[in-house]
This record gives sequence, C-alpha cells and structure tokens, in this order.
Amino acid sequence: MTAARTFVERGFSATSVSDIAAALGVTKAGLYHHINSKEELLFDIVSLGMDWLDEDVVKPVKGLRDPEERLRQILTRHAVLTACNEGWITILLDDIHALAPAQRRKIETRKRAYVDLVRGTLEELKSKGRLRDVDPTVAALGVLGMIIWLPRWVKPRRRLTCAQVADQIATLALNGILLPDGQTQAPPAGRKLVAIRK
Amino acid sequence: MTAARTFVERGFSATSVSDIAAALGVTKAGLYHHINSKEELLFDIVSLGMDWLDEDVVKPVKGLRDPEERLRQILTRHAVLTACNEGWITILLDDIHALAPAQRRKIETRKRAYVDLVRGTLEELKSKGRLRDVDPTVAALGVLGMIIWLPRWVKPRRRLTCAQVADQIATLALNGILLPDGQTQAPPAGRKLVAIRK
Repeated sequence: MTAARTFVERGFSATSVSDIAAALGVTKAGLYHHINSKEELLFDIVSLGMDWLDEDVVKPVKGLRDPEERLRQILTRHAVLTACNEGWITILLDDIHALAPAQRRKIETRKRAYVDLVRGTLEELKSKGRLRDVDPTVAALGVLGMIIWLPRWVKPRRRLTCAQVADQIATLALNGILLPDGQTQAPPAGRKLVAIRK
Repeated sequence: MTAARTFVERGFSATSVSDIAAALGVTKAGLYHHINSKEELLFDIVSLGMDWLDEDVVKPVKGLRDPEERLRQILTRHAVLTACNEGWITILLDDIHALAPAQRRKIETRKRAYVDLVRGTLEELKSKGRLRDVDPTVAALGVLGMIIWLPRWVKPRRRLTCAQVADQIATLALNGILLPDGQTQAPPAGRKLVAIRK
C-alpha cells in the first residue's frame, strides 16, 4: 500500500523503484528481491483493487435475483469501497497503459466483466420498464465514472462520513437511472417490433 | 493540442520535451524557443481548458436567474464540452501537482470558482425545496466527476453521438438531483429552527 500511495502521490511514471524503496524504508536491492519491476508492482496493486471489487461488490450481489436490489447494492457497495477503503487505487487505472500487454489484457478483461455486470443489470431493468429513458451502457459508464471519481474529492473526517457520501452518491445514481418507485414504462419499441415480426 | 495529446497518451511524467518536439515535427531547440519547460506547457494547456469552460459553460449561464434552468444548462454544456470537444484535457487535471506552486494555485482557484457556481446553484434549489435529500456539495462534486470522467470512455462515431451521450448524462444527473417536476419539499429543518429561534 505504501508503494501504491507513492505512485498516486507522485504519478506512476515519475516514481522510481528507489522512491518506493525509500518510502518503504528498505534498500533498492532489498526491494528487487521481492519485485521484478515497478510495472509488475503496478499490476499487483491494480489486481488487488480488482480482488477487493470482486470480494466487496460482485460476490455479495451474485445471488440477488431482483435487478433493482442488485443495482442498489452494486452502487452502494462500490461507492463505499472507493470512498472509504483505499479507493485511490482506482487513480492508478489511468496508468495501466504502462503494463506489459498480457498483464494489461488481464486487467481490461476484469474491468469489462464488471461493466457487463452493471450494464446487464440495467438491461434487465429496462426490459421490466423500470429504466428511465437512458441507454444502459451510457448509464452504467456514467455512474461508474462518478463512483471511480470519489477518491479524488472525498476526504476523511469531514462534515459527512465517507459512508454517508457513498450512500448519497448511490441514491443520486439510482434516482437518475430508475423511474420513481412503482412506475414503469412500456418496453422499448425495438423489442415490440421484434415480437410482432415473429 | 499535439502536445496535450502526447501528455495524455504517454502520461505527463513519462513525456519529455523531446517527445513533444518529435510529435510536433520540430527540433527540441526549436520548441524551447517557444516554451520554457514542459510544466509551463502543461499550465498553458490546462488554462486553455479552463478558458473553454468559462466560454462554453460559465458565461452563457451567468444571466439565467432560474436555478433549475441554470443547472440544466451547466450540466448539458459541460457534458458536451468534455464528451465532444477535446475533453481529454481534463485527464491532465490529475497532473497539476507537477506545476509550480503559483501556477497550481491559479488553476485551483479557477476550479474552485467553478465548483462554487454549481454548488451555489444547488443551494438555491435546496432553499426552494426542489432538491432531493442530498447534500449540495456531494451532489455537485458527484455529477462533476461523472462529467469529467466522460472523455475516458466516450469514443467518436459509435452508436450514439457524443451530444446524445452528453444529453443523457446531464438528464441522468438532473433526475438524480432534483425532485420530479413540480414537486417540492419543505426547506431543511435547520433553517426552520433558526427562524423559530428568532
């Protein structure tokens, strides 16, 4: 985590292995005993962030069959993760272009699977007529951007706790995406046409 | 703009003045004839982005007295700016820690003035009872994060135009922030208590 913080504070490219060793209070040679390169260290850190996302968000919602409850839990849990728990790791996502192609692909695949979970949930809600007039992909990437941006401005021990901020952000996103409680609209025209053609 | 793109593609720290000169097709000496350092170039680029924000968003909404219309215009105009017009400059905002303190402060002051415009508009809406149960600062920074994140995923010439994406994002934000059309709620309790104490 010290290494991750050093990357975030100085910028990944500007941080040398010597800087990380200094921040950890070890020698550069001692650090190279544990890591092969700073790119590999970045891969390990970002992978750890993806592990947390799996653990705290993806696994707990897997069993939820109601898409509305699933969406609520995804957004709230993800917002808590980025606002309260070392979410600044997400800032390093901008640096994954520095990774070796194979490692970069691994991260991209995990990111895509997560976006698909959110988008899939929105598509389910759309087919139930619970979505406002918004494209599921646009809504998914929009609210994920809002959540990923949280570590850039949420500071500990301010007027509101990080959990309160996370809850408000998730609620704002839900109100922006879903129709008011109980309201539904007819499924999109495209879907009806397909049914008629049958 | 070529310099800005090079910074975004490679990361500011990893980009040398020689890289920028090569991208521009000039010699390093020739480039140093125009700039003093790459930090100054970064300052010029980010300042240009702030100029655009002033021109395209702040100035056009200044005369709007209805806070709801002002908010709608701010969010739509800002989303169009980041989704359609060289919005990837916002990615360089993460690098302003590399600026000299005086230049950094100038950018921070301009950023703060803009956040204050959005937050002030939300506070006006709150006092009119038009805001959902959300803190104006949290809502302002939340939706600005969503808008600033757009250049990281909106790609030109996809299924939806950048203007359509921008419009959907602004609408999602408005629905997340405001009560449904025409609905209002009583001003917050704190305000009433102050009035009672008088």
